[in-house]
Amino acid sequence: MLRWEEPPEGPVLVLLDQTRLPSEEVELVCTDAPALVEAIRSLAVRGAPVLGIAGAYGVALAAARGFDVDEAAQALAGARPTAVNLSVGVRRARDAYHAAVARGEDAGQAAVAALAAARQLHREDAEASARMAEHGLALLDELLPGGGHRILTHCNTGALVSGGDGTAFAVALAAHHQGRLRRLWVDETRPLLQGARLTAYEAARNGMAYTLLTDNAAGSLFAAGEVDAVLIGADRIAADGSVANKVGSYPLAVLARYHHVPFIVVAPVTTVDLDTVDGASIEVEQRPGYEVTEVLAPQVQVSGAGGGIPVAPLGTQAYNPAFDVTPPELVTAIVTEEGAVSPVTAEGLAELCGKAGRARG
Amino acid sequence: MLRWEEPPEGPVLVLLDQTRLPSEEVELVCTDAPALVEAIRSLAVRGAPVLGIAGAYGVALAAARGFDVDEAAQALAGARPTAVNLSVGVRRARDAYHAAVARGEDAGQAAVAALAAARQLHREDAEASARMAEHGLALLDELLPGGGHRILTHCNTGALVSGGDGTAFAVALAAHHQGRLRRLWVDETRPLLQGARLTAYEAARNGMAYTLLTDNAAGSLFAAGEVDAVLIGADRIAADGSVANKVGSYPLAVLARYHHVPFIVVAPVTTVDLDTVDGASIEVEQRPGYEVTEVLAPQVQVSGAGGGIPVAPLGTQAYNPAFDVTPPELVTAIVTEEGAVSPVTAEGLAELCGKAGRARG
Repeated sequence: MLRWEEPPEGPVLVLLDQTRLPSEEVELVCTDAPALVEAIRSLAVRGAPVLGIAGAYGVALAAARGFDVDEAAQALAGARPTAVNLSVGVRRARDAYHAAVARGEDAGQAAVAALAAARQLHREDAEASARMAEHGLALLDELLPGGGHRILTHCNTGALVSGGDGTAFAVALAAHHQGRLRRLWVDETRPLLQGARLTAYEAARNGMAYTLLTDNAAGSLFAAGEVDAVLIGADRIAADGSVANKVGSYPLAVLARYHHVPFIVVAPVTTVDLDTVDGASIEVEQRPGYEVTEVLAPQVQVSGAGGGIPVAPLGTQAYNPAFDVTPPELVTAIVTEEGAVSPVTAEGLAELCGKAGRARG
Repeated sequence: MLRWEEPPEGPVLVLLDQTRLPSEEVELVCTDAPALVEAIRSLAVRGAPVLGIAGAYGVALAAARGFDVDEAAQALAGARPTAVNLSVGVRRARDAYHAAVARGEDAGQAAVAALAAARQLHREDAEASARMAEHGLALLDELLPGGGHRILTHCNTGALVSGGDGTAFAVALAAHHQGRLRRLWVDETRPLLQGARLTAYEAARNGMAYTLLTDNAAGSLFAAGEVDAVLIGADRIAADGSVANKVGSYPLAVLARYHHVPFIVVAPVTTVDLDTVDGASIEVEQRPGYEVTEVLAPQVQVSGAGGGIPVAPLGTQAYNPAFDVTPPELVTAIVTEEGAVSPVTAEGLAELCGKAGRARG
C-alpha cells in the first residue's frame, strides 16, 4: 500500500491515505521527508511493519532529493516515538547511506544505497508475509482437515500495514486464493473500527466472502458453531508466549477456549521481544477517553473534544486500553515466517528466534 | 421517566425522549393516543416494562379525552407488535375501562377506572424494581462480603425502561445509595450504544462512580481483577433458566466464569416464559446490517441507508443478532421481585413463578 515512483520531477513515495478509508481511496504523494512525517503523525500510514518500510523510504527520499539525511532520519523516527519498527527501518536506510559514504561513494551513489536498503526491507517484509501465510495455512489444514475454513479475525492485519499481504489476514487470503475460505468473520474492533473500516475494505477488494459483526456478536457465532478458528496479529509477544494485541483479543481467546476452537496468532519473529519476560511485564498503553465517548467519522464536521460525535454524557470517564494480553495457555499456536510454535512455550519461541537470528546472520 | 399530568387543557402523558439522550433532555407531551403511538414507533420510549405502562396510560388518555378506547388500544398494541409487555399493559387498562362500563358506570367514570389500572401497573412495576434491588443487593452482600462492589453492566436496565429504578441497574443504584458501590463499569453496548447513551446518563444523573468502556475492554477489566460481579437484565428467560439478553451478554458470562466472578441476571418474574423450554427454543431477532455498518448520531445530518454515518465499505454484509442466549450453567443467580434462584434450575424457576402467580391471584 506504498510505492516508490520516479517521475521526471524527481522521486516520490506514494501512500494510500488510511484515514479516508473506506469512503474514499486517496493517495498521498510525499515529495520530501516532512510530508511523510506529517502522514505518519496523522495516521494516514499506520501499522508496525509498514511504518518501518515507510521510514526507510523516507530516508531514501531525503537522500535522493539532496536533503540532510541525518536530520530527515531524526524527524522520521520521532514522528511516532513508540513505534519500534519505524526507528528500525529509518536506521537501516540511514546506515546504508553512511556505509556508502564511508566507502567513498558520492551523495548520489549513497542515495541509491539507501533506496536499495528500503527496497530490501520492503521485499523481506513481503517475503515474511508470504511465508507466514504458507505456515499458517498449513497449520489450519492440519487442525481443520477437510477445509472450508470459517475464520474470525480482529483489527486490521492485511496489506495496509505490511509490505506484503500482512499477518493473520495473509493466512485468510491464502485460504481464499486456494478456495478454502468459507467465511471471514470481521470484528468491527471498537473503538477505532479498524475491522469495519480497513479489514472489510481489504476483504472486499480481494473478493473474499466476509461478514462484519460488532465485537459483541462474536459470542453468538461461537455458540452457533460458526467459527473454525480465530486468527489475529500481535503487537508484542513476551518471552513466555504472552501476546499483546488490540483490545478485544483476550475475550476472543477465552471464548475460543470455552468452545474448543483454535486461537492462532500470526506475527513476524521481530514481534517476539525476549527482553519482556512475561505478560505482566507488558505495559499497556491507555488511550484517550474520547475515542470511546465520541465516534469518529472523517466525513462529518463535528464538535467533540476528540473531533468526533459525542455519544456519551459530557464529562463521562472512559477506560480505554489500547491492547490486552492473552496468556500462552490460551494460544493454540504462534505462526511466524520461520514456522509455528505449538504448544506455545518459552523454549519453542526462543528456538524460533535463534533460527531467525542465524538466518539473518 | 413518564408521568401523567392534568393541566387545565386536559390530561397528558409526558415522556422523556430517549432518542435525544444524552445530548439533550427533551420531554414529549402526548395529548392523544396517536402521539404516543408515534413516540413508541420512533423509540422515543422503549424498554419492556415502560412500554407496558405507557400503553396503559395511552388507553387511559384516549378514554379521558373521549376518544374510541378500543380503536386507541388496537393502535397502541400494534405500535410494536413483538413487544409483549406493551399489549399486556394496553389490555389491562382497556379491560378496566370495559369492566367499569359493564358495571353501569358512565364514560367519565370508566376513564377514571382505566387511569387507575395504568397507575396500578406503574406502581406494581416500581415496587417490583424496589424488591429486585433489595434481593439483588442482599445476594451481592452474601456473595461478596465486605462490600465495595465493582459491578460491570451491559445495555440499559434503569429508570428509562421501568416504572421504578429498573432491574440490574436498580441493584447497582441501591448499592450506591448504601455507599457500597465502588464502581459501575458501563459497557457501551454496540451497536446501538445503550450503555454509552443511556446507562451512562442514568449513572451520571444519580451521581454514581461510573466508567464507560468499549465492550471489547471488559476482558482487560476481568484480567486485572477489577470486576466483582456482572449484573445484567433479561429479555426472556426460558423454563430451563437460559437467559436471552442484549447481544454481548453471553461473552461476559463466559469471561465471568473463566475469572470466577458471579454473573447475575435481574429481571421480573414476568420475564420467565415457561412455554419456552430451553435456550435453543428462543428465536433470536436479526436486526438490519446498517446498525453495524453505520454509526447513528442523532445530532448529525447523514447519508447512509439506515440514516447513519457509513463506517464500512458500501455493500458490506453484517451479522447483527439483537440478543444472545446464556445457558443456565453460566448464570450464578436469577434475581426477581420474588427472590433469587441460585443455582439456576428449572425447578427453582418454576417455584418462583408459582409463588408470583399465587401472590397475584
